[in-house]
Amino acid sequence: MNGAESLVHTLLACGVDTCFSNPGTSEMHFVAALDRIPGMRCVLALQENVVTGAADGYARMQDRPAATLLHCGPGLANGLANLHNARRARSPIVNLVGDQATHHRPLDAPLTADTEGWARPVSTWTRTAADAAAVGADCASAVQAARTAPGGIATLILPSDTCWDEGGVVGTARAVPTPAQAVPSAIDGAVRALRSGQPTVLILGGMALRAGALDVAGGIVAAVGTSARMMAQTSNARIERGAGRTPIDRVPYPVDQAVAALAGTVHLILVGAPAPVGFFAYPNKPGLMAPPGCEVHVLTRPEQDPADALARVAVALGATTAPKPAAVPRPEPARGEVTSEALAQTLCALLPEHAVVVDESVSFGRALYPGTHDAAPHDWLQITGGAIGCGIPLATGAAIGAPGRRVVGLQADGSAMYTLQGLWTQAREKLDVTTVILANRKYAILMGEYRGVGANPGRTALDMMDLGNPDLDWVRLANGMGVEAARADTMEAFAELFAQANARPGPFVIELVI
Amino acid sequence: MNGAESLVHTLLACGVDTCFSNPGTSEMHFVAALDRIPGMRCVLALQENVVTGAADGYARMQDRPAATLLHCGPGLANGLANLHNARRARSPIVNLVGDQATHHRPLDAPLTADTEGWARPVSTWTRTAADAAAVGADCASAVQAARTAPGGIATLILPSDTCWDEGGVVGTARAVPTPAQAVPSAIDGAVRALRSGQPTVLILGGMALRAGALDVAGGIVAAVGTSARMMAQTSNARIERGAGRTPIDRVPYPVDQAVAALAGTVHLILVGAPAPVGFFAYPNKPGLMAPPGCEVHVLTRPEQDPADALARVAVALGATTAPKPAAVPRPEPARGEVTSEALAQTLCALLPEHAVVVDESVSFGRALYPGTHDAAPHDWLQITGGAIGCGIPLATGAAIGAPGRRVVGLQADGSAMYTLQGLWTQAREKLDVTTVILANRKYAILMGEYRGVGANPGRTALDMMDLGNPDLDWVRLANGMGVEAARADTMEAFAELFAQANARPGPFVIELVI
Repeated sequence: MNGAESLVHTLLACGVDTCFSNPGTSEMHFVAALDRIPGMRCVLALQENVVTGAADGYARMQDRPAATLLHCGPGLANGLANLHNARRARSPIVNLVGDQATHHRPLDAPLTADTEGWARPVSTWTRTAADAAAVGADCASAVQAARTAPGGIATLILPSDTCWDEGGVVGTARAVPTPAQAVPSAIDGAVRALRSGQPTVLILGGMALRAGALDVAGGIVAAVGTSARMMAQTSNARIERGAGRTPIDRVPYPVDQAVAALAGTVHLILVGAPAPVGFFAYPNKPGLMAPPGCEVHVLTRPEQDPADALARVAVALGATTAPKPAAVPRPEPARGEVTSEALAQTLCALLPEHAVVVDESVSFGRALYPGTHDAAPHDWLQITGGAIGCGIPLATGAAIGAPGRRVVGLQADGSAMYTLQGLWTQAREKLDVTTVILANRKYAILMGEYRGVGANPGRTALDMMDLGNPDLDWVRLANGMGVEAARADTMEAFAELFAQANARPGPFVIELVI
Repeated sequence: MNGAESLVHTLLACGVDTCFSNPGTSEMHFVAALDRIPGMRCVLALQENVVTGAADGYARMQDRPAATLLHCGPGLANGLANLHNARRARSPIVNLVGDQATHHRPLDAPLTADTEGWARPVSTWTRTAADAAAVGADCASAVQAARTAPGGIATLILPSDTCWDEGGVVGTARAVPTPAQAVPSAIDGAVRALRSGQPTVLILGGMALRAGALDVAGGIVAAVGTSARMMAQTSNARIERGAGRTPIDRVPYPVDQAVAALAGTVHLILVGAPAPVGFFAYPNKPGLMAPPGCEVHVLTRPEQDPADALARVAVALGATTAPKPAAVPRPEPARGEVTSEALAQTLCALLPEHAVVVDESVSFGRALYPGTHDAAPHDWLQITGGAIGCGIPLATGAAIGAPGRRVVGLQADGSAMYTLQGLWTQAREKLDVTTVILANRKYAILMGEYRGVGANPGRTALDMMDLGNPDLDWVRLANGMGVEAARADTMEAFAELFAQANARPGPFVIELVI
């Protein structure tokens, strides 16, 4: 058995059965091993940031890792931005990078690069396999590292000789430790804050945003009364929400709104989330969104179990699960002009049951989340690390990780351009993804930020934020990659296309001119 | 004057007047400064690997740096692969990366990443500006570092407060040292080897591949007689060639052919090039392409002046400039089936005078360079670091760096997909680029490499190397980005389209089905 074969057997033994890949020469022995050993679903993508973003989307839906397969340092580099997002989402990923043979590396062939150096900033675990005999055990360690709470990226670099040499040994799956429980003092601190009667905000992140934990958190807030509120982080890996579930607002993205939302807070209780900070700094604006002097209580760190901690807090407070919100009839799809609010209304009306929404709608989309609390039950996935270009890859991976559920991508056009290659993978794999391209033909978020600098943009500045001249034609771009597509410029046309797209199998792109 | 304004003034004072950019929020003060201060040509690209690859193409044609403008660590990460290629091409680039404000970085906002750590492996010089007052001097140092022979990437990271704070001071342009001359013992060693009568090969790279230096090198070889040969590296930043110029073959890419080409060599003389090594290692094949025991003489290191050294060797040998090859009439464009040789013939027939050829033709293209020695005078640019996805960006930057000259991209389809966003920039800037997409709808190079592993690919392996299912439609993809395009599947159709495309202004894409 060569090293590559031991790698495939070990992945399968450790429960990793999906591999998103963009292989090159140094990975041919791994590809050959995949050919000989059944059991791995291999998904090809035509650019590495699609590979890594898809692995992130898969992990968010499966709560377990897929493998990636990348080619040398530059192939890894192409996928780093979405690994950055995945790191912020705490998604488990087994990130496999083929590389120069151990004896060839000193010759500094053209493709030789600092693969480990590039991997380390996004990885919780990084190792370069020393020889074929080590590959199986290294792989088992990588899977364990990726799956250990709160989840992370384990990068295993495989010099090509470690794959082609004989002497491979299948690694044994290693136990994944159960997430630690919150310490009693953390429970007590949260309980005291909630009982204080002073304004208290629970900030929820990670697994605290699944339906069960949200119900418990909602029950706590209801039991405490008006002094307590709860909010999700600004950007979250996955929120289970929609009709019949406990709704939760998020800390707003704009600094002024976030500061206003948290004004007067005396106690901030962190449940698997960091204290809210501004996405960027601005002159003369605060970096921390909660008031200075606000007391911060860490109920659970990201690697601890938030559902257990919330349950213990609920017991201490005598809280029961939140009363289910009253059923609200779905609105009619919106008509007329295309606005963020109208799109929210149509989504609320037509979102398929158990849809997975991937939200990279950026500036236009700020009404979409607040306006869809009462849509059919669904999951909401966001860009977590701010590295734009995650939406199409996330949707691709989420569709593979959540078969039978419709994926709906709410996708700003500027962001979509970074990773449009993912549409081809959606076509090839016949994935049930409806991508709504929000075509404003500009980096609209930058227009707002530029005005924040205190000036009206002149010609040079406008040219650096304007995606018109020429206009991108998303119908042709999608068709060029084998995905059917159509354009809408009224809400009526959009509603019709959206309903049709969601009812048919396979991917569809709607260019919504906004 | 704020830091951003001092940056723009310093760039202009140092002769950097072109900026390829993909800005974000943290760069808005720089964009505002560009708006207020005239003199900088700003070129927007919709993905960062287009930005960095275009800066590489510009530098190869101008022999001076453009600036880039990238957004935070993940924006840099998206451009690393083409920075890797640029590093191997020794292209001067002033790589500007905006980042979190100095006081905001400790808050670990979502987009915060290890920007310096990612930059360092591709950069000869890396610095994070400390405050607004330092930005101008830092920028002047960056330009100097980028321009110091043999050229390199100088990365200046700009926390947003160093741009918006007042107190900017315009930096003074710093002297760029003249490239060092070869030491006398290096000249003597090369002369002795050439006079030995033993088989001797000059390996030329970098500035030794410009027309003047090639003439001198060709004269040396002619003066020595049959024991001496000269070859270019396998991958080169830029070769000046075509009718009336001294032709030079390259060390072949396949290991067996490279070893055969260098068999029997007793003396290897390196002129701004490393000793040839295999692009990848293979089981039971050598890593060094020259015979074991071959004596290696370094005439010039990459940072030394090869033209001067060659001239001194020529004087010592009494060599004169190579006799110009006899004029060969241009062939007729090829007819019938599309083959690599037929394409070479048509290029030889129709390549416009002083064209700039950007060759990322990969496996199909191996006949193109040998078959075009007698085409009209032109420059030939290659992928230097093996990070595929450089062709469209290089062509974009080369067109801006060589106005008035037609750029011809010979572009494998699989490689084109990594950075197809560059077509939009070509349309926006109305660049005179003809891109020939060589559409074999597979990673053909991997098919060959896979067979080298010793097996016929099965279903899984084929699926990971096959870009069909669905076929990419390059006419629609190009149209979707505002570039006119057409498809050819015979050589006659290609010749007609190629001649038309080269005769009209602006970009054009030809999908050549191979």
